[in-house]
Amino acid sequence: MNHVMPVVPHKSPLHDILAPSSIAIVGASADPTKRGYKAMVGLIKDGYRGAIHPINPKADRILGVKTLPSIEALPGPVDLALICTPAATVPGIIAELGRKGVKGVVVLASGFKETGPEGAKLEQQVLDAAREGGVRVIGPNTSGMFNLHHKVNLLALAKVKPGEIGFISQSGNMLLSLVLEAEHNGHVGFSTYVGPGNQTDVGFNDYLRYLGEDEHTRVATLYVEGFRDGQRFLQAAREISALKPVVVYKSGSTEQGRKAASSHTGALAGSYAMTVDLLRQVGVSVVQHSNEILPVAEGLGLLQKAPGKRVAVISDGGGQATIASDRLAEAGLELAELSEQTKARLAAILFPQASLVNPVDVAGSSDANPALLAECMEIVAEDENVDSVFLVGMFGGYAIRFAEDLLGGEMRGAESMIELSRRSEKPVVVYSLYAPIKPPALRRLHEAGVPVYTSIEYAVRVLAALGERGIYLKSHEDDVLPPAVAPSADMLAMFARARDEGRDLYEYEAKALLRTHGIEVAEEAVVRAPDELVEVAQRFGEQALAMKVVSKDILHKSDAGGVKLNLCGEAALRSAWAQIMESCRAYDADADIRGVLVTPMAKKGVEVIVGVSRDPIFGPVLMFGLGGIFVEILEDVAFRAIPLSELDARSMVDQLKARKVLEGARGEAAVDKGALVDLLLKVSGIVSAYPQLFELDLNPVIAYSDGYAAVDARIIINRAVM
Amino acid sequence: MNHVMPVVPHKSPLHDILAPSSIAIVGASADPTKRGYKAMVGLIKDGYRGAIHPINPKADRILGVKTLPSIEALPGPVDLALICTPAATVPGIIAELGRKGVKGVVVLASGFKETGPEGAKLEQQVLDAAREGGVRVIGPNTSGMFNLHHKVNLLALAKVKPGEIGFISQSGNMLLSLVLEAEHNGHVGFSTYVGPGNQTDVGFNDYLRYLGEDEHTRVATLYVEGFRDGQRFLQAAREISALKPVVVYKSGSTEQGRKAASSHTGALAGSYAMTVDLLRQVGVSVVQHSNEILPVAEGLGLLQKAPGKRVAVISDGGGQATIASDRLAEAGLELAELSEQTKARLAAILFPQASLVNPVDVAGSSDANPALLAECMEIVAEDENVDSVFLVGMFGGYAIRFAEDLLGGEMRGAESMIELSRRSEKPVVVYSLYAPIKPPALRRLHEAGVPVYTSIEYAVRVLAALGERGIYLKSHEDDVLPPAVAPSADMLAMFARARDEGRDLYEYEAKALLRTHGIEVAEEAVVRAPDELVEVAQRFGEQALAMKVVSKDILHKSDAGGVKLNLCGEAALRSAWAQIMESCRAYDADADIRGVLVTPMAKKGVEVIVGVSRDPIFGPVLMFGLGGIFVEILEDVAFRAIPLSELDARSMVDQLKARKVLEGARGEAAVDKGALVDLLLKVSGIVSAYPQLFELDLNPVIAYSDGYAAVDARIIINRAVM
Repeated sequence: MNHVMPVVPHKSPLHDILAPSSIAIVGASADPTKRGYKAMVGLIKDGYRGAIHPINPKADRILGVKTLPSIEALPGPVDLALICTPAATVPGIIAELGRKGVKGVVVLASGFKETGPEGAKLEQQVLDAAREGGVRVIGPNTSGMFNLHHKVNLLALAKVKPGEIGFISQSGNMLLSLVLEAEHNGHVGFSTYVGPGNQTDVGFNDYLRYLGEDEHTRVATLYVEGFRDGQRFLQAAREISALKPVVVYKSGSTEQGRKAASSHTGALAGSYAMTVDLLRQVGVSVVQHSNEILPVAEGLGLLQKAPGKRVAVISDGGGQATIASDRLAEAGLELAELSEQTKARLAAILFPQASLVNPVDVAGSSDANPALLAECMEIVAEDENVDSVFLVGMFGGYAIRFAEDLLGGEMRGAESMIELSRRSEKPVVVYSLYAPIKPPALRRLHEAGVPVYTSIEYAVRVLAALGERGIYLKSHEDDVLPPAVAPSADMLAMFARARDEGRDLYEYEAKALLRTHGIEVAEEAVVRAPDELVEVAQRFGEQALAMKVVSKDILHKSDAGGVKLNLCGEAALRSAWAQIMESCRAYDADADIRGVLVTPMAKKGVEVIVGVSRDPIFGPVLMFGLGGIFVEILEDVAFRAIPLSELDARSMVDQLKARKVLEGARGEAAVDKGALVDLLLKVSGIVSAYPQLFELDLNPVIAYSDGYAAVDARIIINRAVM
Repeated sequence: MNHVMPVVPHKSPLHDILAPSSIAIVGASADPTKRGYKAMVGLIKDGYRGAIHPINPKADRILGVKTLPSIEALPGPVDLALICTPAATVPGIIAELGRKGVKGVVVLASGFKETGPEGAKLEQQVLDAAREGGVRVIGPNTSGMFNLHHKVNLLALAKVKPGEIGFISQSGNMLLSLVLEAEHNGHVGFSTYVGPGNQTDVGFNDYLRYLGEDEHTRVATLYVEGFRDGQRFLQAAREISALKPVVVYKSGSTEQGRKAASSHTGALAGSYAMTVDLLRQVGVSVVQHSNEILPVAEGLGLLQKAPGKRVAVISDGGGQATIASDRLAEAGLELAELSEQTKARLAAILFPQASLVNPVDVAGSSDANPALLAECMEIVAEDENVDSVFLVGMFGGYAIRFAEDLLGGEMRGAESMIELSRRSEKPVVVYSLYAPIKPPALRRLHEAGVPVYTSIEYAVRVLAALGERGIYLKSHEDDVLPPAVAPSADMLAMFARARDEGRDLYEYEAKALLRTHGIEVAEEAVVRAPDELVEVAQRFGEQALAMKVVSKDILHKSDAGGVKLNLCGEAALRSAWAQIMESCRAYDADADIRGVLVTPMAKKGVEVIVGVSRDPIFGPVLMFGLGGIFVEILEDVAFRAIPLSELDARSMVDQLKARKVLEGARGEAAVDKGALVDLLLKVSGIVSAYPQLFELDLNPVIAYSDGYAAVDARIIINRAVM
């Protein structure tokens, strides 16, 4: 686990503010129940070495520190001001602070955007005053911040250990919860905490960059109800996750949760599934249960990554080896296949009844010699088929359960495990059923940086996060974005024409755009008068054809009777034309009908859907899934932010639960995955090249064993861009 | 939570054995590392009041107790003997013990069935000796047992509190793990523990009955690697779960886990999804993560059940209210819709900024008065839309976080919550972020029987288990099995004919069986010669027809060219006949071809599948799912043990992830669910009436908005039954 954090130059403007050399407390108080008192207690108790300027016109001294009667009385510029006064006073105070050259403020008051339009107005005044005065704003509606390595403890939390977890949380209770868990755990500490509150100025992306640059933070951990600027966040996360693990718990995984979140911080929470996909795309470790945040942050902080997903399990009990196997498989990890050499080496030190097939069950071999478990771990760690080592069972409890004189063996075993963990790039993770009562060998492991978990489930979440991160880093080393697409003059003119005519693109125009940029679109003919059908019948020969009305006024063509299928020969085409015209006129007498689109009926294949939308938080997002029930009922779709790398496109296909259908289920041939990946990359390129494109829907694309055909295309234009 | 356990008459033969008045220890030892010594320590230390007979020919006294030189020297019959000697000695010892009138033995040794054929032979000798002598056998290959209320602590575990959780576990480490968690938790105790080991004689079903009858057990908890007699277990679980909660963790949820389990106890682990469905069918609370076993067992033991799934959340922090909302929805629980009256009552005591919509966020109202949270809980508990009350946040920590003098208010609040929990049928469950450090108010709640959890996730699992159990009990009050089906003489003759001819049923015979017992089968005609096709063409008029070969020798009809579809008119039928005969002869020249089956092409509808198999562990099991990819790729199927109640059949349909397809997705009409339920019940009745039926496959059945049609049927006969 020799992962030395790279030293990163400080570019974020937040370093001065979050590690300030002087602090003013606006609304400092002598009342012990007030935040303006508690913050001072926190600073003084922790031994903050910078200047403290309590501002209070009424008191002379607070906690022995001389107060200032006003902001005006500040002796000079200070780095950070904590504002403890009510909401209505905040814009004026920030304006004053700005004039005194204060770099940043923490605004505790609530009563802003989260309460409705009046509050939103006040929040805008806060922002205006801050911009005017060059002051950065943390909050408002924040629980505050601390930076323990600089002894800035504005929350006055007792018993929080300085450590390596940086935490940004829109829930103050979640911070408290982690702090109490850490207190109980005994080996976890924190670097910087900030409650971003309403993020009126500084947002998650800014905090993440700060944590990324902060030399005391080995893992950036975020509890997010809603992002303000998702695109910037993704950019920051992509850069920071290359340096250190980024862990995100995103609330609002359900409709109920989204409603609750929005009444809490006024946050706009988009689709959870989409958010998770986009976060993973940029290397974030997404945690889905709140009780896994601390275990995963601790494990990633200590161990950073694993070379892969092949886990070797060493256990001293069959039952828990079984549970570990189940959980590993469910988490997408593999039981490493041990080499014959490894098995032989294990056999040489274990009882004959031991199981040498991973999970290795020592079956009593360690009962009189617990250090034997460490030997087994060393052996499997040397196997090149193994990416991480997981000890499962009662290690740490041998002296309690069997005989007191086993303590020596346990302590020796712990030292060997620590040694192994230090010298190997393969993470060593320990689950012990004795972890809740913290016996000496486990305390020793833990304090030396080998994480010890109280449940198999937590340990497996950590192993999964380590493996996913390792694979992400490795695969992104040479992942590149495809070259940008140059927009074509014809197509730009086509967009302009559509805008001038007050409509979106016709289907044939959408298809022309796709075709221009190399996407396989089914053959088609636009027919403007029935006499042209002769030529069409000849051109497509004997194939069965489909006919669809072309009209900007008819959006639901089937409902209007504007679609006819399986047409053979000129007579059928003429008759279909007549029927379509009649039905569509009946449907909408004023519809502007430009003709019909004729196209050969698609060959049978697998229907997939490609969609693009511009998300208000995350910007352009591409969606891919199988057609029909898979999208509509099972919601089995993958999302990626545009632009996509080739890896992104490949992983979209692999992520689907229904990927087996693409791989050739029920005796069908596998579809051409390379062609689909190419399609996704080309769509991504088109969207990047044409800001005029607002939404795109290819539904369906028919995927074949040799290529694909886009048989329907809909493009909504972005009037704002024209 | 006034749930008094009913007193149940003791019918299980295990009471004398698991609560023995006298115990012999065969292989008692003076060596402190041996089980034969530890067991004596456990008995003596805990103050066991019955007679202890250590048997050891070499020592005179062990731990001050006079030893006996041999089994022969036992003064008279004893209830239980603990056998600590090696595997090979066990059959002889049991024979001797049987002659002395010993009722039961615990066999610790391993080296039996789990090691292979030699061990299995030895295990059979154990069983033979036991049957011969009238001795019941616990194990072999067991970790042992304890009964703390009778001070029988054969495992010599220190610091285990007597309590209300009965635990049967095929993993000794899992027992240790729960005991250590309980020690740490401080408020959970155990009644009886048994390791069933290889279950050669006494199995899970027997232990469950014992726990069901045991007045000290309020919740029966099982860690299962494999059942021996699944049908008996289901029967026992159905009866016991009506009396008290039954919690099962079943290992082997993955292929990897199944392999690991089978090398551990030699257990045959069937399909996990099937096992879970069957356990839930009989009212078992299935736990899917090992770290949830103790929280769920504790919560169910204390609170037993909730009237339903509508949860009211009272919280003092928006972030955690959001997390709770997400987890509740994911667990299939609902946020109760509070009545206007309830909201008005809450508004009267809370700050104006409080959120009165469930989750209720008191938004600071309780900061100076934590007892207010209890008032809110009392108010929502009186709302008839609420089934359970969930407190989320920092209760218990107010005195730590805000001001020490809030402790009084916290203790008063705790007393009110205890009072509420005692008088209400609605369970009260508490999550507190201060739970890890056990402040006084939480200790008081816990010791008074209000469970306090360290994570929202655990608390929600408990609320889900309580709600599911309450709903199960309520709905099963008047759930009855449909009347038995009387087998028809014709159909019995048909089975006999097939057996005599050494074949399974022809498709038309299978359909005849279904039709005889009221199942809707598509119309059809069996055609034995081409001239009969005239009549068939007339009978089915203008409909398009399908033709399938009838031959016991051709199992894969399509592959053999034995299926023709979309046939219109006599000429098409004749030509199809000729082609089928030619193809099938080419496929298998010796095939015994009896003719063809002609049936109208099915109308379009939703394809479903009904299957029956006889599981080696659980007996006849019915499977239901949607056709095609749903079954084959998404494995979205439901299982129930036969016979099914109407409730079972309904819940099968409701359980499918793809139920939306049945409810009318994508503009289609909903299918006739009542007809499908009727179909499932009829299939269940047929399977019960005809033991000759071994496997059945209706694939597909086409479901319509008005009824259904079984269009294909395959029945494999059970030659053993004929």
